[in-house]
Amino acid sequence: MATEGKVIRCKAAVAWAAKQPLVIEDVDVAPPKQGEVRIKIVATGVCHSDATGLKGVGQGILKGIFPAILGHEGSGIVESVGPGVTNVKPGDHVIPLYMAECGECDNCKSPKTNLCTKIIAMQMKGFMSDGTSRFTCKGKVLHHYMGTSTFSQYTVVADVAVVKIPDSLPLEKVCLLGCGVSTGYGAAINTAKVEEGSTCAIWGLGGIATGVCRTDATSLKGIGEDLIEGIFPTILGHEGSGIVESVGPGVTHVKPGDHVIPLYMAECGECDNCKSPKTNLCTKIIAMQMKGFMPDGTSRFTCKGKVLHHYMGTSTFSQYTVVADVAVVKVNKICQQGWGQCIVLGVPPAGSNMSLPPFSFLYGKTMKGSVYGGWKSRSSMPRLVKDYQEKRIILDEFVTFTRPLARINDGFELMNDGKAIRTVIDMF
Amino acid sequence: MATEGKVIRCKAAVAWAAKQPLVIEDVDVAPPKQGEVRIKIVATGVCHSDATGLKGVGQGILKGIFPAILGHEGSGIVESVGPGVTNVKPGDHVIPLYMAECGECDNCKSPKTNLCTKIIAMQMKGFMSDGTSRFTCKGKVLHHYMGTSTFSQYTVVADVAVVKIPDSLPLEKVCLLGCGVSTGYGAAINTAKVEEGSTCAIWGLGGIATGVCRTDATSLKGIGEDLIEGIFPTILGHEGSGIVESVGPGVTHVKPGDHVIPLYMAECGECDNCKSPKTNLCTKIIAMQMKGFMPDGTSRFTCKGKVLHHYMGTSTFSQYTVVADVAVVKVNKICQQGWGQCIVLGVPPAGSNMSLPPFSFLYGKTMKGSVYGGWKSRSSMPRLVKDYQEKRIILDEFVTFTRPLARINDGFELMNDGKAIRTVIDMF
Repeated sequence: MATEGKVIRCKAAVAWAAKQPLVIEDVDVAPPKQGEVRIKIVATGVCHSDATGLKGVGQGILKGIFPAILGHEGSGIVESVGPGVTNVKPGDHVIPLYMAECGECDNCKSPKTNLCTKIIAMQMKGFMSDGTSRFTCKGKVLHHYMGTSTFSQYTVVADVAVVKIPDSLPLEKVCLLGCGVSTGYGAAINTAKVEEGSTCAIWGLGGIATGVCRTDATSLKGIGEDLIEGIFPTILGHEGSGIVESVGPGVTHVKPGDHVIPLYMAECGECDNCKSPKTNLCTKIIAMQMKGFMPDGTSRFTCKGKVLHHYMGTSTFSQYTVVADVAVVKVNKICQQGWGQCIVLGVPPAGSNMSLPPFSFLYGKTMKGSVYGGWKSRSSMPRLVKDYQEKRIILDEFVTFTRPLARINDGFELMNDGKAIRTVIDMF
Repeated sequence: MATEGKVIRCKAAVAWAAKQPLVIEDVDVAPPKQGEVRIKIVATGVCHSDATGLKGVGQGILKGIFPAILGHEGSGIVESVGPGVTNVKPGDHVIPLYMAECGECDNCKSPKTNLCTKIIAMQMKGFMSDGTSRFTCKGKVLHHYMGTSTFSQYTVVADVAVVKIPDSLPLEKVCLLGCGVSTGYGAAINTAKVEEGSTCAIWGLGGIATGVCRTDATSLKGIGEDLIEGIFPTILGHEGSGIVESVGPGVTHVKPGDHVIPLYMAECGECDNCKSPKTNLCTKIIAMQMKGFMPDGTSRFTCKGKVLHHYMGTSTFSQYTVVADVAVVKVNKICQQGWGQCIVLGVPPAGSNMSLPPFSFLYGKTMKGSVYGGWKSRSSMPRLVKDYQEKRIILDEFVTFTRPLARINDGFELMNDGKAIRTVIDMF
């Protein structure tokens, strides 16, 4: 192409500093060096991992080093390639991959992991493998992010971090194969190895979690709704999941930040029924539960000056609800003794820890996780594409909003407000 | 036998209360009821899980309910059987099993777990399945423990919790198949599925851990010793593992109780070398480390009025050592990114929790565990026996002490002092 070997000036959304909105700027994108590929980005999703980087709480390859060009869920067309690149050529439709696959490192040679180590050290520093950036703006060097930086109209990635896809695919949809959907789908079938008929609880309902839901490998019995008659006015809902916002005095088994499931059937552990192996019908809070109140006989909900009843002790059709301490359980306690697995996918803020009872592991529960759904990124793409083409996974329906590049900050807002599964940015 | 159908009066070690030494008493052992088996116990090991029950900090089937007859690692000869028992008969050599195998519950039918649920509810309450005990002493009912109570010359167990073994086996050795060795061995090959050439770190060196070490499935690169010249007088040793006793001001990444490995190669994360991907040679403490001192230039060891030098910053040949905070790492951080597994086997005190970084799961580490090494207890016994006979596992060498029943408390002492791998009690 005419731009080959030249610096390209184009638009990009620049993250000048943590916690600041992105700014659309004219940036200069240097030509690809040895083993590098310059891509014209056509579309990019906005993912929570971009928000994590932008918040300044990312770690590993998600650590945002500012100023930076974020973005890791893109699709595009190869503009030019540096010396030695053989896997893609100008004009190829491609997906940049934040998890590379060199095929040569110990991890790539192992069937047990997809964590390619070839470029990861520099990726974490926000640079290409030679320790430099291809982006400048207003005389300043901009850092790369996750090795992909798809929030620029042109980006440069390592050849081991890009894969060709068929020209026939809609680039504005298949960008979701670059992260969210592949991650959730792979987590279910590669990491958890979910089997036909398994019961799964899924925390969060963004792009990754909905990706989990759409696996063909299982008839997931997921999160639904179930209405029975209540005491009106009320807030219904009893099949929820969420995160503890705060706890009252004396509550010790959950704490703010814990991922939990509210339980319409409590377990106090002290009533006669709880002590009997013959029934799970805890009697501690049931009387007030049936009257639509908390155990103290009052409600925690009001609306337009009216007291609303609780429903089944859970009332999960509210963004915030209050439940008795005996009616809530931490996530890892949910999973089946013997073989239940809890899979960690979301990126926790740097330095965060989770508190787990070791006895649950003894009884056969497993905790594990994966990045990019455990897919060997380049060699698995044909499979992911085929699954999309044959409708075993869906992508189109997950694109709930599209925005032009100039309005990329809308994408973060829609995501943070829980309104979008995915907002896709139209880059040109 | 002449005793069939009659109460047998015999000797047993009774735990009258938590944290008290066992007392040898004359106890009455009722005949087995429907589906039960009365066994003359010939030998029994003393295991940490008995100590856990005795301390009053057990949970699940290890919860000691007093007064009780403890013991779960025994071997013996069937004295009589109750109605309906078909899997063993009087005179059979047997091993009682704290993890039953009914073959009929959902868990038994699943290949994924060995957690038989048939008798577990009553087992946790210290009773036989009909909710009563077979033991009385001085007019008091004694509780069963783990469904086995092998610290009595005669005990009664459920038929699903006992398995016949060949008469030719030495009962005073194969009692170890009832818990420790089977648990460690199974944890390695069933739970971790350790492969040839894997590197394993093992915390603790009791019966279970030594069972792990003896798997034929792998050439374990375990805990060894390695001496090079030091600055004398010194305490050598650098390949250790242990539990944090206390920490100095400012230490946040480990806390008392954490299982850790001291590191002769520190990682401060801040020196130039730590920041470089090209070397792991942390420079922060190395100067003083080479002089045999802590970073402040002094030693933490004295002996007979003399200051002893540290060695490699670790000095693991002392029961207690002091290391720099940058030279110690928590257990789950040890395991390999991508596919490393941390297997929990020991029984933690009730209510204890472990704090884990979720990001480590994302990078492919797994935490899991098992009870009784994941073996389906009855159907796996022929395999375990065969592995013993063909010397793929050893038992005899693990019996480091034997004591008569009258001196059973010695077994607890030897274990708590770290002197015994296993003390086997000669019951008659």
